[in-house]
Amino acid sequence: MRPIAKENVEMSSKQGVLGADTSETSPDLLIKRAAQALGAEEVPCDVPQPFLEHVKGHEDVSRIPMALLPKLAWEIRQKIHESVKVTGGHLASNLGVVELSIALHRVYDFRKDRLVMDVGHQVYPHKMLTGRAGRFHTLRQANGIAGFPDHREDPVYDLFHTSHAGMAASMTVGLAMAEHRRGMKNHHIALVGDGAMTAGVSFEALNHAGHCEEDVLMIFNDNGCSISANVGALSSTCSKIRKTGIFKRVRDFGKEMLGKMPYGKDAERIAGQMLGAASHLTHSPGAIFMDLGFKYYGPVDGHDFEALHEWLEEMKHIKGPKLLHVITQKGRGMTWAEEDPINWHGAKPYEVQGGTAVVKKPSKPVQRDYCTVVSETILKRAKADKNIVAITAAMAEGTTLSKVRSELPGQFIDVGICEQHATALAAAMRKGGVNAVACIYSSFLQRAVDQLFHEVSLQDGIPVTICMDRAGLCGDDGATANGVFDLAYMRAFPHFVLMAPKDEVETEAMVNFGLDLDKPVFIRTPKEPSATAMTAEFKPLELGKGEIVREGEKKVAFLAYGAMVVRCMQAAEKLEKEHGLKATVANARFCKPLDGDLVAKLLNEYEYVFTAEDHQLQNGFGSAVLEEANDRRLDARKLTRLGIPDLFVYHGKRDWQLAQVGLDCDGLVASVLKTLKK
Amino acid sequence: MRPIAKENVEMSSKQGVLGADTSETSPDLLIKRAAQALGAEEVPCDVPQPFLEHVKGHEDVSRIPMALLPKLAWEIRQKIHESVKVTGGHLASNLGVVELSIALHRVYDFRKDRLVMDVGHQVYPHKMLTGRAGRFHTLRQANGIAGFPDHREDPVYDLFHTSHAGMAASMTVGLAMAEHRRGMKNHHIALVGDGAMTAGVSFEALNHAGHCEEDVLMIFNDNGCSISANVGALSSTCSKIRKTGIFKRVRDFGKEMLGKMPYGKDAERIAGQMLGAASHLTHSPGAIFMDLGFKYYGPVDGHDFEALHEWLEEMKHIKGPKLLHVITQKGRGMTWAEEDPINWHGAKPYEVQGGTAVVKKPSKPVQRDYCTVVSETILKRAKADKNIVAITAAMAEGTTLSKVRSELPGQFIDVGICEQHATALAAAMRKGGVNAVACIYSSFLQRAVDQLFHEVSLQDGIPVTICMDRAGLCGDDGATANGVFDLAYMRAFPHFVLMAPKDEVETEAMVNFGLDLDKPVFIRTPKEPSATAMTAEFKPLELGKGEIVREGEKKVAFLAYGAMVVRCMQAAEKLEKEHGLKATVANARFCKPLDGDLVAKLLNEYEYVFTAEDHQLQNGFGSAVLEEANDRRLDARKLTRLGIPDLFVYHGKRDWQLAQVGLDCDGLVASVLKTLKK
Repeated sequence: MRPIAKENVEMSSKQGVLGADTSETSPDLLIKRAAQALGAEEVPCDVPQPFLEHVKGHEDVSRIPMALLPKLAWEIRQKIHESVKVTGGHLASNLGVVELSIALHRVYDFRKDRLVMDVGHQVYPHKMLTGRAGRFHTLRQANGIAGFPDHREDPVYDLFHTSHAGMAASMTVGLAMAEHRRGMKNHHIALVGDGAMTAGVSFEALNHAGHCEEDVLMIFNDNGCSISANVGALSSTCSKIRKTGIFKRVRDFGKEMLGKMPYGKDAERIAGQMLGAASHLTHSPGAIFMDLGFKYYGPVDGHDFEALHEWLEEMKHIKGPKLLHVITQKGRGMTWAEEDPINWHGAKPYEVQGGTAVVKKPSKPVQRDYCTVVSETILKRAKADKNIVAITAAMAEGTTLSKVRSELPGQFIDVGICEQHATALAAAMRKGGVNAVACIYSSFLQRAVDQLFHEVSLQDGIPVTICMDRAGLCGDDGATANGVFDLAYMRAFPHFVLMAPKDEVETEAMVNFGLDLDKPVFIRTPKEPSATAMTAEFKPLELGKGEIVREGEKKVAFLAYGAMVVRCMQAAEKLEKEHGLKATVANARFCKPLDGDLVAKLLNEYEYVFTAEDHQLQNGFGSAVLEEANDRRLDARKLTRLGIPDLFVYHGKRDWQLAQVGLDCDGLVASVLKTLKK
Repeated sequence: MRPIAKENVEMSSKQGVLGADTSETSPDLLIKRAAQALGAEEVPCDVPQPFLEHVKGHEDVSRIPMALLPKLAWEIRQKIHESVKVTGGHLASNLGVVELSIALHRVYDFRKDRLVMDVGHQVYPHKMLTGRAGRFHTLRQANGIAGFPDHREDPVYDLFHTSHAGMAASMTVGLAMAEHRRGMKNHHIALVGDGAMTAGVSFEALNHAGHCEEDVLMIFNDNGCSISANVGALSSTCSKIRKTGIFKRVRDFGKEMLGKMPYGKDAERIAGQMLGAASHLTHSPGAIFMDLGFKYYGPVDGHDFEALHEWLEEMKHIKGPKLLHVITQKGRGMTWAEEDPINWHGAKPYEVQGGTAVVKKPSKPVQRDYCTVVSETILKRAKADKNIVAITAAMAEGTTLSKVRSELPGQFIDVGICEQHATALAAAMRKGGVNAVACIYSSFLQRAVDQLFHEVSLQDGIPVTICMDRAGLCGDDGATANGVFDLAYMRAFPHFVLMAPKDEVETEAMVNFGLDLDKPVFIRTPKEPSATAMTAEFKPLELGKGEIVREGEKKVAFLAYGAMVVRCMQAAEKLEKEHGLKATVANARFCKPLDGDLVAKLLNEYEYVFTAEDHQLQNGFGSAVLEEANDRRLDARKLTRLGIPDLFVYHGKRDWQLAQVGLDCDGLVASVLKTLKK
């Protein structure tokens, strides 16, 4: 095997670039170049073009000659471009692994070998190579292709439905241990990005696999940035590998050994093993993986088909835990995404204008998203108070805390994809006298439940403020990203204050309330534009007190939490307009402490009360209301709980998802009418 | 500074050994030796003896001459011995850090410097050195000294109430960042055992601290075993450091530099820094910490006062993130604990007989603990079925899965203190065709909530079996260890089956049921002897069906979950005997799916229904019953929920804890009578 690791991967794509300069990057040109390279008229190939219409896994990919793989890569990038510009989706991460995905399918057969992608931001090429290219225009649409690996879509090629970071190593180690126990001789590969590697569970899995000497391959997809710019010492370590060529000694050693050996398959393998062994002799930043018991190989250029092919073939012959460090370029092949991979990580629908991409503007002006209201409120407060520090776990852009990073870098901390540490850090900083506020998606805060208990609640309730964005059903990303369990896992913790705003003004008020209150405060906001101010005059927040935002007749009352207030208001209007029914709408504001007097008032004065929440019904807001009613010996038979039943709601627009579970305006109206008819 | 790191710490204590050979190890002898070493009649010291009566922190410890510190260590060990033999407690881990704790208090002043101990299994010497020695006979007793750091006991010296592993690094980094921001010049130290280091969150915190170059000191207390025998590649790495003396080159380098420099404080500091720097030049297993951005120092003998003192002083002058590798012997000073530190980690009350310690036998024979019933059932099934694999996260002894380890090592996996990975591993192994069962304490399973969601529930419910030991109030270890949130954080996850057995027979049946069911099953059992079979004939388990175990009159019915069934039976007997009230007792068996027909029957037929659970009332079993009643439009005003209110229950015997919240027999009777009177 030729030593093919490159010290510095060329960080601009020379071929197949989509975008402005199409004359230079047309597929015809790629085919012509392939033929020229072989000195022939054309490259013989029995797979018809376009390849993607005929590729359904390993066998088909293997039939395409190496020289024509750039054309296949071009097709994949073209298809990603065509889909994402319309549907939105993960752009830069998928563009970065096109060659790697092709190489993986060429070398391994994932009908029997196993591939687990960490997070799954990089699954599009894999999906296209396994027979799903034709449906890619349905990407992230209801009942269409999921934006992440999804076992419901393909139970063989997508073993797990994923999107949370750091899981692939554990899953791969478990699969390998089980299947090897059962006598299977297949290969197990985890594809893990450098961002996901910072999640503690990755370390747990590597440490265990290294100890057991389990036969797994970790492909460390190092693109130098996680979702936000990468942080953490490990990141600097990898950066050193990329920049300083510390593997030169190893490579030279390999070269030397090769020169002494007869050429051939066995020699290649032996040389490869020696190369691996030699890397152990050198102190290098890759030592971290070695210390965890892994053999370390690479780095290899993740856009070089020949290099990838040879290294991946080699990996088949190395027993035990091994890590192949692959360097890829996020956004590869689209100039705008190469230049700004962070903002083109999760892309909104876009248009190409004058050689670059421009996000499509909405046709009418919209309110700020809830997360923007949150981050701008934090920014405003932080400007006035140096003692406020904002923390994110690699979601500076997603939570829009990037505003704080750019304006007040000294009051901003990004810990990487480490929700456990982010939560503990916030608590400890608060204990140390700094007013810490963290913005973490509801679904990702699940990763820090024990820190919420141990570092926050148990310490007499350290008064951190945690803003949970993406609470409730969150649209295109699907079931893995929905934040519909937070009330369940948090309400039982003593000292916690749980709240959710009804509109923009209340969001600002709640963030300020949280920053000022001497208790741990959790504010849940959905992924949608904030509702415009719902009441003429804003009634100041009072701990554990709700409000009535629409006074109706004493028949039907909604008691709504957070994002459901605006929808209950719409439902109340519709009920009045179409059915002459004047419903009252109450805004709970707090789930804990719950406004028991408001609950009592509604249950005592109304014939029908409906709780509404964008959360699972089990252990949800309605359950809190039931507990309160029970404690007060109120008759809860007139109460109907509206929320998400005991199932997962998959990807689609948020409004579509809400309609699926009857939480849109029409659904709420229908529930009221149905209940009244009974 | 003399280079004092030892390649091999002598692993048997030569001084101050408690136990049989008292003539060799008496305190008088220690004092005499100290004098002899100084060539004097006696060592002048203005702190009277016994020291512990006069030591209240840094200033007092500093006044004791170095030569007399072994006497102070002896006093601490003696006090540990005197307390733990009566109260039980963490023995081996505390014995191991006596010298280290003394040295820390000698060098640092923890009224302004910060010390966060990971887990807190090693806090006794620290407590004794900060004025709490006199109360040590109340260890782990209700309202007595807590077995872990506890901010309620001392808000300055015990900043946090801890016991979950891997938290100290995050907490220390957060405190340091906050206090340094605020201009404080104090030192921040995390004392972390090698077991806790395997928890992913430790890695997250180190990676972040390394990146920020935060000024913190991690003391890596390497005793070669966590709670169970240590696992993981990192453990082998440390073991290599201990055994092979790879630091020889660094040490020699330091020696050489010293030889060239004038002696003095500055020279010492410079040499120390060079020693640290030199360690970077060498490839060594300690490289893992360096790759995370830490300067690495050591290893140092954790029982050598002079070495500890010098190294700790040195650390004060090193800026940025640094790690001091200290090698200690778990169980140090008591022959039995040195020889078997794992079994003497959590010690039951014991007596010293013939030079060794013997656990006090209970005066009457008791039933097997629930965890023993669980592990023996797993063992029995695993013997008959090679496809069953049992997983623990460093709790082989605590869960008694050690039985499986010793009899069927090929069907046993210990992943270390990694509940996230343990849960993901179980799910992935099940996906790979192996029947995986994990035993994890309820409180520790909080660390894997996202894995329960992402790896288990979301995958259409991978049918793992997880046995949650220590569910409910769990006695001496206190609030950090109580497993009283599991229903809250799990019931909202689709596909989950949650159950709890009433007695020994039902425990066996539930484990078997879980192993056979095609759904994820979670079995919660308390930390107590299993109840004897409660019904003459065992009614086979049926998914989502409860049973009536005591038929009374149609007035009062208990609907009890798990460990509360036996207590409701006692209460029913007492109510009948003392008040002529024949109550019915129903055993819910399942919390999810809940037996709705049973709920309806009780609410329809009885005047008063009481749910009883060993769990928080918020989002607890009673909430599930309320939801069911609400869905069926049943009148829940006759329902009273008995469980743990919205607060923490601190350490004391489990029965005492239950009585505190009215969940013992008398408490249940009182609640019934009070409700009936209303």
